[in-house]
Amino acid sequence: MGRIRGFASDNNSGVHPKVLEALTNANNGHAVGYGGDELTHRTIQKFRELFGMDTDVFFVYNGTGANVIAIQALTRPYHSVICPETAHINVDECGAPEKHSGCKLLPVQTDNGKLTVANIAAQMHGIGFEHHSQPGMVSITQATELGTLYAIEEIREIADYAHQNNMYLHMDGARISNAAAALNCTFKEMTIDAGVDVLSFGGTKNGLMFGEAVLFFKQPTGAVKYIRKQTAQLHSKMRYTAAQFEALLSDNLWRTNAFHANKMAQKLAVKLKAIPQIKITQEVQSNGVFAIVPPQIIAPLQKEFFFYVWDEHKSEVRWMCSFDTREEDIDDLVALIKREVAETCQHP
Amino acid sequence: MGRIRGFASDNNSGVHPKVLEALTNANNGHAVGYGGDELTHRTIQKFRELFGMDTDVFFVYNGTGANVIAIQALTRPYHSVICPETAHINVDECGAPEKHSGCKLLPVQTDNGKLTVANIAAQMHGIGFEHHSQPGMVSITQATELGTLYAIEEIREIADYAHQNNMYLHMDGARISNAAAALNCTFKEMTIDAGVDVLSFGGTKNGLMFGEAVLFFKQPTGAVKYIRKQTAQLHSKMRYTAAQFEALLSDNLWRTNAFHANKMAQKLAVKLKAIPQIKITQEVQSNGVFAIVPPQIIAPLQKEFFFYVWDEHKSEVRWMCSFDTREEDIDDLVALIKREVAETCQHP
Amino acid sequence: MGRIRGFASDNNSGVHPKVLEALTNANNGHAVGYGGDELTHRTIQKFRELFGMDTDVFFVYNGTGANVIAIQALTRPYHSVICPETAHINVDECGAPEKHSGCKLLPVQTDNGKLTVANIAAQMHGIGFEHHSQPGMVSITQATELGTLYAIEEIREIADYAHQNNMYLHMDGARISNAAAALNCTFKEMTIDAGVDVLSFGGTKNGLMFGEAVLFFKQPTGAVKYIRKQTAQLHSKMRYTAAQFEALLSDNLWRTNAFHANKMAQKLAVKLKAIPQIKITQEVQSNGVFAIVPPQIIAPLQKEFFFYVWDEHKSEVRWMCSFDTREEDIDDLVALIKREVAETCQHP
Amino acid sequence: MGRIRGFASDNNSGVHPKVLEALTNANNGHAVGYGGDELTHRTIQKFRELFGMDTDVFFVYNGTGANVIAIQALTRPYHSVICPETAHINVDECGAPEKHSGCKLLPVQTDNGKLTVANIAAQMHGIGFEHHSQPGMVSITQATELGTLYAIEEIREIADYAHQNNMYLHMDGARISNAAAALNCTFKEMTIDAGVDVLSFGGTKNGLMFGEAVLFFKQPTGAVKYIRKQTAQLHSKMRYTAAQFEALLSDNLWRTNAFHANKMAQKLAVKLKAIPQIKITQEVQSNGVFAIVPPQIIAPLQKEFFFYVWDEHKSEVRWMCSFDTREEDIDDLVALIKREVAETCQHP
Repeated sequence: MGRIRGFASDNNSGVHPKVLEALTNANNGHAVGYGGDELTHRTIQKFRELFGMDTDVFFVYNGTGANVIAIQALTRPYHSVICPETAHINVDECGAPEKHSGCKLLPVQTDNGKLTVANIAAQMHGIGFEHHSQPGMVSITQATELGTLYAIEEIREIADYAHQNNMYLHMDGARISNAAAALNCTFKEMTIDAGVDVLSFGGTKNGLMFGEAVLFFKQPTGAVKYIRKQTAQLHSKMRYTAAQFEALLSDNLWRTNAFHANKMAQKLAVKLKAIPQIKITQEVQSNGVFAIVPPQIIAPLQKEFFFYVWDEHKSEVRWMCSFDTREEDIDDLVALIKREVAETCQHP
Repeated sequence: MGRIRGFASDNNSGVHPKVLEALTNANNGHAVGYGGDELTHRTIQKFRELFGMDTDVFFVYNGTGANVIAIQALTRPYHSVICPETAHINVDECGAPEKHSGCKLLPVQTDNGKLTVANIAAQMHGIGFEHHSQPGMVSITQATELGTLYAIEEIREIADYAHQNNMYLHMDGARISNAAAALNCTFKEMTIDAGVDVLSFGGTKNGLMFGEAVLFFKQPTGAVKYIRKQTAQLHSKMRYTAAQFEALLSDNLWRTNAFHANKMAQKLAVKLKAIPQIKITQEVQSNGVFAIVPPQIIAPLQKEFFFYVWDEHKSEVRWMCSFDTREEDIDDLVALIKREVAETCQHP
Repeated sequence: MGRIRGFASDNNSGVHPKVLEALTNANNGHAVGYGGDELTHRTIQKFRELFGMDTDVFFVYNGTGANVIAIQALTRPYHSVICPETAHINVDECGAPEKHSGCKLLPVQTDNGKLTVANIAAQMHGIGFEHHSQPGMVSITQATELGTLYAIEEIREIADYAHQNNMYLHMDGARISNAAAALNCTFKEMTIDAGVDVLSFGGTKNGLMFGEAVLFFKQPTGAVKYIRKQTAQLHSKMRYTAAQFEALLSDNLWRTNAFHANKMAQKLAVKLKAIPQIKITQEVQSNGVFAIVPPQIIAPLQKEFFFYVWDEHKSEVRWMCSFDTREEDIDDLVALIKREVAETCQHP
Repeated sequence: MGRIRGFASDNNSGVHPKVLEALTNANNGHAVGYGGDELTHRTIQKFRELFGMDTDVFFVYNGTGANVIAIQALTRPYHSVICPETAHINVDECGAPEKHSGCKLLPVQTDNGKLTVANIAAQMHGIGFEHHSQPGMVSITQATELGTLYAIEEIREIADYAHQNNMYLHMDGARISNAAAALNCTFKEMTIDAGVDVLSFGGTKNGLMFGEAVLFFKQPTGAVKYIRKQTAQLHSKMRYTAAQFEALLSDNLWRTNAFHANKMAQKLAVKLKAIPQIKITQEVQSNGVFAIVPPQIIAPLQKEFFFYVWDEHKSEVRWMCSFDTREEDIDDLVALIKREVAETCQHP
């Protein structure tokens, strides 16, 4: 990995300068711990300006923490959580959801990482039958782990179906800013207005040092502070979590960062489409590009730019763009791909 | 709370300037996530220089996270963990140890927050009897939650007893730097050399923004990385946790900070002893002062300096000193106490 | 252990002949599993005749199963359960309550195994403070593990206090029949009428082969069938659990059995009081006798009659009477005690 | 449901007369509880005669209890358990495996309820990668939930693959007697000799009132007694569990019962194959028959004989035979099917 910036993950990038500045500014004297400070109150208020006053905000350390708190808050252990097979909660959290909540996950095979009413409905077995885990929550990711997006209307349909069937709708919004920037909508339109009950709001992948937030919409949340503490997700020096989010939510920094990352992915996708040996496998709707590439070129590419193989069997790779990805990085990556393709794929 | 610095907790203070500087310096380009970066490797090496090469280091977000990972790693759910009744794991973690590990805590009443072989031995019931949780771990805190210290020899005796009885010894070292500074010993002498098996190494209370480390001594740790991830304690942008610890462990910053906080507590204690209406209740061996005060003075004092009432029934308060406590803070607090005592205690 | 009947535990005795007969009678053709059969419905109805129509009944396999279902149903993992230190849930279930519910137990030291409003109130720390497990349940045992009894009025006081403080009252009724027989009251007076919210109703210690029931009073129980199944306490051939309880609740068999066991304990106690070297340590109010005896006589006695040493340090033993204990067993035991005392205690 | 015997489940049948007789015989005086009695020791010995001396036996109440103890004993919470999607642990235990063990289940789609090395291997993702649950156990059911069987050689292949990949092999043997009878082999050949590490040995579906056993082969089992107790699966009056198994394992009663149930299923299958409107969907290798039937006939049939619809969408039903199914029951069922088919399917 020779370059200063790669395409491995949007969490390989650093901290946005304005976020770092906010951390420095927050470092001033003593402050009450555990969220009793003014900065935390102010930042929660900022979230409410964006999501509406029916929103309760709980800051946590990371995405897995946010997800397992959301699940614990709105389920009991005999519930199941319906999610795409590719969901972060299903494949990237080492079983944390099951361990923390006691629930079963019901993974659904999809082509594009998106649930639909139809594929949720196919999981609705044994309702009221005590031998079966009872579906209690639907979890969708926006943007999905495959870089695709739910339209607002699609979210609303899922929410309606969930509520009609006594389930809550959780949104894993690790990349919710990328989604809102891509759909050119507000956070509110895409979440509470569309029927989402609880949201894991991502910060780290959009320029924070650490920190996510769990947002509950129109839900009783008296128990959540205890759940957060018991889950070991309560930051003592909370002002430093809050300060980062205040910066992110100010002056549309969240949108600027996300918009840029999305734009870089679009640029990369456009250029890749011109290379016949590369086959893009998912619609490029946010900041990630998935593509099947000639297997021989992967190793040489990874010497220059770090990125992950998504599916070894299919020779499918993932390139993630970040708030700090530069046009020249895209140009360099594409040039290298072209060179490697030319060199290694002459005689397929 | 009118002052910029109070005595509520060593986590109400901010981030040490050198730690903030290290965070800024770490903010340079991309880095592999989840601890695969160079800074993390370098900092782990630094820990090993201090604790010896038989040490495995796992960075986590906070103290509760560190403690529950330590417990999960070395116990099974049918074990019990013997600890003082005043232990953080027993009274300040909202039941996280029980929830994460499934274990029972066996709290022991003590006068000074310290376990002894005798009071541990009194818990050793029903060994081999399947109806009883089996004692599997002893947990001590150094410095204790009451500001007292274990002598190295006391730790060794507990460790020997624990090992002879098939138990591991965990040390909650949220304030381990204060302990090492006070005992004028190395970390190594107080932990691995004294028989400790696993240590929660505290950072936040000694000048970090966030971040603790779990250190295993001479133990197989192949499972720990999974436990950390499943416990939602794996920081994606790990370099920012590591950078802080690198700063803390460099140039003896840990000792300088801790020594100063201890010294301030000593100064406070000396001055308080001259006030007959104040009764110091615990030996002042690290950075906290516990005292019984006239109940009437508490509210007026808290208007100026934030601090916690430790035991309402006894009118016992806790004053914690921090790396950034200044002599003038002590002087101001003591002056205020004297004034309030004089005003309100004229006619006891 | 040479005798056919000992004093070790009321679960060392066998199955009452009428219960065995009921099992045989139930063994007739096929029946719907998991409680959908007529016998189960009929037996639930019989419970409701005794406890009132606001009672929901769930049959389970054993006492630990009953207790952990009761706790799971009415708590969340951040709650604590206040109980006597001697409670079965605290010392005889290998940590099952913590493991199944995630809750912390708050054990209270008592002289006689009984909670009081005063010793419950002493546990009410940190209410609303997220660092502390929140008291969510009080658990009392009737008759207690020390053979003592709560008067109905004492139960009501505890229930009132619990409810005023947002806690549920659980009664571990492993020996509830002994209690009702001793107090000469109905089950209803001692439970729902006194404010109990959930009851573990014991069967095994009063003549069943296996089987207990969890009774919820005036509580929503829609979740309990799932909790029972997930806790692995749902008997597929439920009719055989139900049949036993039908026999037990018919013709006052429960009272006859319990009354007899209590009477035998009384008889034993009266005779022991005449032996100066034996000191009865707890009021004999149900079917157990606790006594301090000369240490030298324990081993010789145990050769003839199996029983348990309750507290080795104090040389305290426990003798339990059962529905099948005979007067001659008491006579034989007392005669043997007298002989051993005479032989071994001549020269104290 | 008008008939005394139906086809709903092999646990709708009653208790075999010899088992009931054994229970009656065991009801004789007092016996040490929790398995310390002679009958339990004798029955464990009987298991060892059948499975070999490297076998440790733990009696439990039911199948879910057996399965979750097996999983807890040989996994840690960060492990996953690979099983067929149709496995009882996956669809019929209300999430008990996840709740008790903390593990993730990895369900595999199969046509016939059987795992193969190929479909296990397809689940082996992310080994050593801390973000993924680590495959730690393979669980197969013999006979499967679809009535099919693994050949001994198939079991051995799976066991070898599991062991080569650091996984244990669990066999859910709720119907292991049916399997051994059908394959005409010993228990030992099909389990320990084929590489199985832990077995849930079923009793209830083969004529017991209640009771299963967990058998560990060549494994350290020092922890299992605590796990059983903490899982609330320790029967106090254990002699009554043991007595049933002693009867079942004596005089080949297990084989006689199972052989008969299998034979009845064969007889039913043969007759059904002669009805063109009935399509048998799974090989009939043990005691269950799965068939797609005209939807209109289901309700009328269920008025006479209780049985379950297996897959509503496909109009697939399940008929289970039991040790007490009679030839006349088969004849009556088939006659009724023919009549209903004739009446309702005239005008397809």
